[in-house]
Amino acid sequence: MLEKILRVNALYDFYQPLLTPKQQEYLDLYYLNDYSLGEIAEKCSVSRQAVYDNLKRAESTLEAFEEKLGLFRKYQARQVLLAAIRTCAAEWDNEGQAELDSVLKKLENLD
Amino acid sequence: MLEKILRVNALYDFYQPLLTPKQQEYLDLYYLNDYSLGEIAEKCSVSRQAVYDNLKRAESTLEAFEEKLGLFRKYQARQVLLAAIRTCAAEWDNEGQAELDSVLKKLENLD
Repeated sequence: MLEKILRVNALYDFYQPLLTPKQQEYLDLYYLNDYSLGEIAEKCSVSRQAVYDNLKRAESTLEAFEEKLGLFRKYQARQVLLAAIRTCAAEWDNEGQAELDSVLKKLENLD
Repeated sequence: MLEKILRVNALYDFYQPLLTPKQQEYLDLYYLNDYSLGEIAEKCSVSRQAVYDNLKRAESTLEAFEEKLGLFRKYQARQVLLAAIRTCAAEWDNEGQAELDSVLKKLENLD
């Protein structure tokens, strides 16, 4: 469950602007402010089921955007490459230079 | 005009998966394969005006996605940072290390 919460939060970071205001409101309340479904239902004057359905749809929408654009996947890949750059930079020599170059090429071709 | 063509092509690279199949087809023909509006109209058995309207809408949609996600803007910013990394790497010393570190931090915070 924690893993799912972390993933939805990460995808929300990347795709929030593409969601509807209502989807953003429910995700903010549920995932960022830790409201329960019942609390959101009461706050928004809708049924608990309606909140649940909207959250599920919003989560599917986020996964669909990730499937199409892969922003979170690319972000994670960039972090790996950046860590590699740091490693290269930490032990700098001619060999390290060549290694850094190859990392930079991968980074540049990422998107 | 060239500047506009280059921008639409760049935005299309980032947001193509979010466009409708028809939008993708018209943009492919017009911007990637250099078809004229008339040629696309004939190929797709629609009016020249319909092709024009669809292309305009597709271009607006691409700009709207860029307004929301800024993928092309972030990509350009990354390229600048990567060039800076290359410069740092080219003249490596302790001072260069500190400079490289600050560039990497910016790069990591980009998205």
